[in-house]
Amino acid sequence: MTNDEKMCKMSLAHEITSAIQDTIGRKSAVLHEPKFSGNESKYVQECLDSTFVSSVGKFVDNFEKDLADYTGAKHVVAVTNGTVALHMALLMAGVESEDEVLVPALTFVATANSVKHCGAVPHFVDSEESTLGINPDSLREYLRTATEQRSSYCVNRCTGKRIRAIVPVHIFGHPCRLEELLLVAKDFNLVIIEDAAESLGSFYQGQHTGTFGLLGTLSFNGNKTITTGGGGAILTDNSELAKRAKHLTTTAKIVHRWEYIHDEVGYNYRMPNINAALGCAQLEQLPEFLASKRRLFERYQEALRDIAGISLFTEPEGSQSNYWLQALLLDDSVANQRDSILEATNSAGLMTRPLWTLLHKLTPFQGCPHAPLPVAESLEKRIINLPSSAGLV
Amino acid sequence: MTNDEKMCKMSLAHEITSAIQDTIGRKSAVLHEPKFSGNESKYVQECLDSTFVSSVGKFVDNFEKDLADYTGAKHVVAVTNGTVALHMALLMAGVESEDEVLVPALTFVATANSVKHCGAVPHFVDSEESTLGINPDSLREYLRTATEQRSSYCVNRCTGKRIRAIVPVHIFGHPCRLEELLLVAKDFNLVIIEDAAESLGSFYQGQHTGTFGLLGTLSFNGNKTITTGGGGAILTDNSELAKRAKHLTTTAKIVHRWEYIHDEVGYNYRMPNINAALGCAQLEQLPEFLASKRRLFERYQEALRDIAGISLFTEPEGSQSNYWLQALLLDDSVANQRDSILEATNSAGLMTRPLWTLLHKLTPFQGCPHAPLPVAESLEKRIINLPSSAGLV
Repeated sequence: MTNDEKMCKMSLAHEITSAIQDTIGRKSAVLHEPKFSGNESKYVQECLDSTFVSSVGKFVDNFEKDLADYTGAKHVVAVTNGTVALHMALLMAGVESEDEVLVPALTFVATANSVKHCGAVPHFVDSEESTLGINPDSLREYLRTATEQRSSYCVNRCTGKRIRAIVPVHIFGHPCRLEELLLVAKDFNLVIIEDAAESLGSFYQGQHTGTFGLLGTLSFNGNKTITTGGGGAILTDNSELAKRAKHLTTTAKIVHRWEYIHDEVGYNYRMPNINAALGCAQLEQLPEFLASKRRLFERYQEALRDIAGISLFTEPEGSQSNYWLQALLLDDSVANQRDSILEATNSAGLMTRPLWTLLHKLTPFQGCPHAPLPVAESLEKRIINLPSSAGLV
Repeated sequence: MTNDEKMCKMSLAHEITSAIQDTIGRKSAVLHEPKFSGNESKYVQECLDSTFVSSVGKFVDNFEKDLADYTGAKHVVAVTNGTVALHMALLMAGVESEDEVLVPALTFVATANSVKHCGAVPHFVDSEESTLGINPDSLREYLRTATEQRSSYCVNRCTGKRIRAIVPVHIFGHPCRLEELLLVAKDFNLVIIEDAAESLGSFYQGQHTGTFGLLGTLSFNGNKTITTGGGGAILTDNSELAKRAKHLTTTAKIVHRWEYIHDEVGYNYRMPNINAALGCAQLEQLPEFLASKRRLFERYQEALRDIAGISLFTEPEGSQSNYWLQALLLDDSVANQRDSILEATNSAGLMTRPLWTLLHKLTPFQGCPHAPLPVAESLEKRIINLPSSAGLV
């Protein structure tokens, strides 16, 4: 590297660091932290007073109802986190051991882990720059060549295994092109399960993400737009699947006055009432959090506008994003400066992060099938997430 | 049934109902409810104030440390519940898909579910009346005939599958005969994983249950002696296993300043900090809860002493039990009155429960191997749990 190149790198990293600090009006910030400015203490205390802190109680019922009202999903089942929500949703959708499930290579590892937890195999597909989600056009083209229909099932020609489902992920809260993905799913006999872990408060053509597929899932981990400590939820309009999801996540116990009879291998995945109490208070403040996060996006955009070679990722057309994590997109010409920007910002106390390592490269998934991934490979080198908490502005 | 027999049944059920009501000084009671009379509100509020409510925070670290101090385990890993604690402990112990794991037929379904969650097969064995746990003598006899050693592994002669571990369960908090079980395990090349979900505060020969096997597990569900809403823990003296358990339960992410690299198929099973805050407060009161539960046992014993045909289950010799759930034992002569006693007590508002249906009879486990189960079959017909909360006396 010449001295000029070094100077240029330092300069871009420095410019970005300053722009972030100017925007948020402070020197340091974590990537995402929750904000408890509503009824959190009140509801949690009420929960303690009731002694119902565990798998039964009014807050977990209310949280499910409030989420159904907000998202428009007919049924909501609250569980301990987003990973198990997706694990259960995949089981509900009929994913069986040895099936393949199409997931983006560009997502947090939980998406692929939940497939593995079903005994199934993640089959990685490419993303697109306009939404950061699965590209329905290249997916269609790939399925046309890589699969065939056998007895109404989509089968991977190479492995001979059934491909059962597509899991679109709304990356950083930005909705995928769901309309086109639903058409691909229909044409290839695949089920859509939406991983909406990052997209509570995000809408596609006016409808909440997570409500387009047969099932959808949410996460309320500590780093999400609202938090329950640890938590997740399954969304579905299908009352039979909702009933089974609740049954399976509460040890599959048959209702009886006193007998203990369980009719399936069940799980202990019910969201505890005390976590739901926190969730009820957080959900009340969601509109306010969303407004703050959009304001933060606008301020970042303003501050970064004049820096050459970078842009701030903007919600796709026709969608309303929650802007969960703000994402800086580097042009190819400055992609080689990603690490120096990460170094400068983190050293300054600004927690920034690169994109997750593409999943097909991780040791536990190296043997899994994948489509060509040119766009994901390019995005991996060019994205940096910025401090994104609702409390920053 | 003759009128005399009907009268006799009503009379025993009525006697027991009155004796319970006299003991607890009230007409109705649930089976087990938590008591929040310490620092619960204070710690939970402190947790909210810190904003660290999720998978990282001082309470989850403190809770692990406090549990290690109390139980004497060298390492403790806090997780979301007892089922996943056991699932992870089995994985740590090397249980693989298709292995068999020896579990009592007489236990809560979670013990067998966690085996299934590893892709392994529960192999059910008999219990004994003196501890309600696995009978080490009949287990030894059974293994002598049903298994053989092949390349230092215990193999089921019938199925040809490797038997990897024994999971003793300390039923209702009463310690199994661990010394003898450890000898059986040694002689047959089996690993011991203790399911101590019910036995926090129970000691065998002065040492805490859950610390004898390679790993042990606890539960802090809402119905347990102390609760975190939902929660569990893995105990072990093996630092390598403890390290791996924490890694695997926190998505198997490699520590790095910013990169996301995961080296195994991980899980999202870390206990959230807000649940641990509750746990820290509860653990401070454990000695008081244990004293109350022992007092309740003594009062029940006094009140039930003169009723013919029944006895109250008493901690095994050499053990100190937490008396998690009080258990009424019916003599064979009145075993046919179990359901009328359940009917009378529950109708009166006293929540009583029979033993869990033996697991080998449940649909999801009907194809699983099992030893002869004469004692478990007998106990199933003769046990009734009584209201057992620490707050009752």
